[in-house]
Amino acid sequence: MKSFQTTYRVTYSDTDQMGFMHHSNYLKCYETARWELFRSIGIAYPEIEYEGIILPVINTSLKFIKPAFYDQKIIINTRIKSFKGARIVFEYQTINETGEIINEAQITVACVKKITGKACFPPKKISDTLKELIDK
Amino acid sequence: MKSFQTTYRVTYSDTDQMGFMHHSNYLKCYETARWELFRSIGIAYPEIEYEGIILPVINTSLKFIKPAFYDQKIIINTRIKSFKGARIVFEYQTINETGEIINEAQITVACVKKITGKACFPPKKISDTLKELIDK
Amino acid sequence: MKSFQTTYRVTYSDTDQMGFMHHSNYLKCYETARWELFRSIGIAYPEIEYEGIILPVINTSLKFIKPAFYDQKIIINTRIKSFKGARIVFEYQTINETGEIINEAQITVACVKKITGKACFPPKKISDTLKELIDK
Amino acid sequence: MKSFQTTYRVTYSDTDQMGFMHHSNYLKCYETARWELFRSIGIAYPEIEYEGIILPVINTSLKFIKPAFYDQKIIINTRIKSFKGARIVFEYQTINETGEIINEAQITVACVKKITGKACFPPKKISDTLKELIDK
Repeated sequence: MKSFQTTYRVTYSDTDQMGFMHHSNYLKCYETARWELFRSIGIAYPEIEYEGIILPVINTSLKFIKPAFYDQKIIINTRIKSFKGARIVFEYQTINETGEIINEAQITVACVKKITGKACFPPKKISDTLKELIDK
Repeated sequence: MKSFQTTYRVTYSDTDQMGFMHHSNYLKCYETARWELFRSIGIAYPEIEYEGIILPVINTSLKFIKPAFYDQKIIINTRIKSFKGARIVFEYQTINETGEIINEAQITVACVKKITGKACFPPKKISDTLKELIDK
Repeated sequence: MKSFQTTYRVTYSDTDQMGFMHHSNYLKCYETARWELFRSIGIAYPEIEYEGIILPVINTSLKFIKPAFYDQKIIINTRIKSFKGARIVFEYQTINETGEIINEAQITVACVKKITGKACFPPKKISDTLKELIDK
Repeated sequence: MKSFQTTYRVTYSDTDQMGFMHHSNYLKCYETARWELFRSIGIAYPEIEYEGIILPVINTSLKFIKPAFYDQKIIINTRIKSFKGARIVFEYQTINETGEIINEAQITVACVKKITGKACFPPKKISDTLKELIDK
């Protein structure tokens, strides 16, 4: 699949006293980016939860190459790398205003029934959409 | 009532690029402080939610007198100022390591039934404890 | 002056276990909104800091009328209420997707020399712009 | 080296609408834990920055095994896995109240001169302390 692009402007509260966007905030940006990707393919994350399914993060791996600074408009490229069983793997690349890759990441979420806490298959509509997307 | 004292050490992620604890983080500290006050008088906030009642914030007023810096151990003094109907008003004072008052606040929470979203009286056990506390 | 409008989509990480946008996050939204207002009138907040001046928050007063929920697109109306000496007072109103006012706030920032920590007048270019704006 | 133990009580603002501590908050806890480890061996992180050196995160890898819930007191075990050149690798394990491992992580920080942004060796006092620690 092609990667899906979102932009984010680094806020003042994202920074720490180093003057960098605090590293924990990338996880927040990547969370928003993956549900925006979902929205772009017709899947509304709130509806998934409404059906009693949650998609908690089970693995994250981030590489911080260069810092992001306050007020910079960064580009986040997101793609679904794989989808097997209950697991969806997202791949990310963040680009700064001068075109440099500043962060790379891989984040895995799992499909889980909220009530039981057990891993499950995503609803058929979603798994069909994801499979079709990955093959593109 | 006498004020209840908690301490908090400012973390790196609390800071912003001014080098100050970001002003939004006082609200997080004050939230923790009020439920620690509750714990100290025998009320467990998680149990309140378990009974279907939430205590959302409905009013906050904060005065930022001096900044708090990374790694400082600050003291938060909390007291319940009033309790009427569904509303509990908390008063706060934050003191830095050199004894200066750096922040003062007043925060009001309301007792709300989670399912209906309507204001309600707190469970009797809690309202009795609060009334007794305020009279002291 | 007329109010300046920004929009914000509530993220997953903004929510707490009540299912509401955590009350501390309004302060982050309002911070972004006021520097976007500044940008719209030709003042870049990063340039102010570059000149050795910071604008820390010294007073906040927020009224939480209704909760904001995950994925809602909220509208934030910001206006400068007053500007006297070193102090700028911002007024906010947040509107949800169905047109209801969910939050109202007043936030005061002070112009401060970063090195001395003392209150100061804003650079002339900024104070001229602000005065002209308020009179409109 | 033996691991260094810190505890953390999950706050309300740490949670998201799943009812879990939001995954980004582990990075904040781990940051605090590594500077507490430093404090325990006589190194004050603020003093490092005071000497013009920062220790930004350059790599993180986290495995989320079970969720942490509001008000739980979690135990964070931190150890320095390796220290070579400018890089220090920390290893973490988080344990919940019933003794289960809920999170495992590896985080690498780099020693960087704040002014140049270039990697550097840590001050001799620190590198001596770290080397001695790892050999234990």
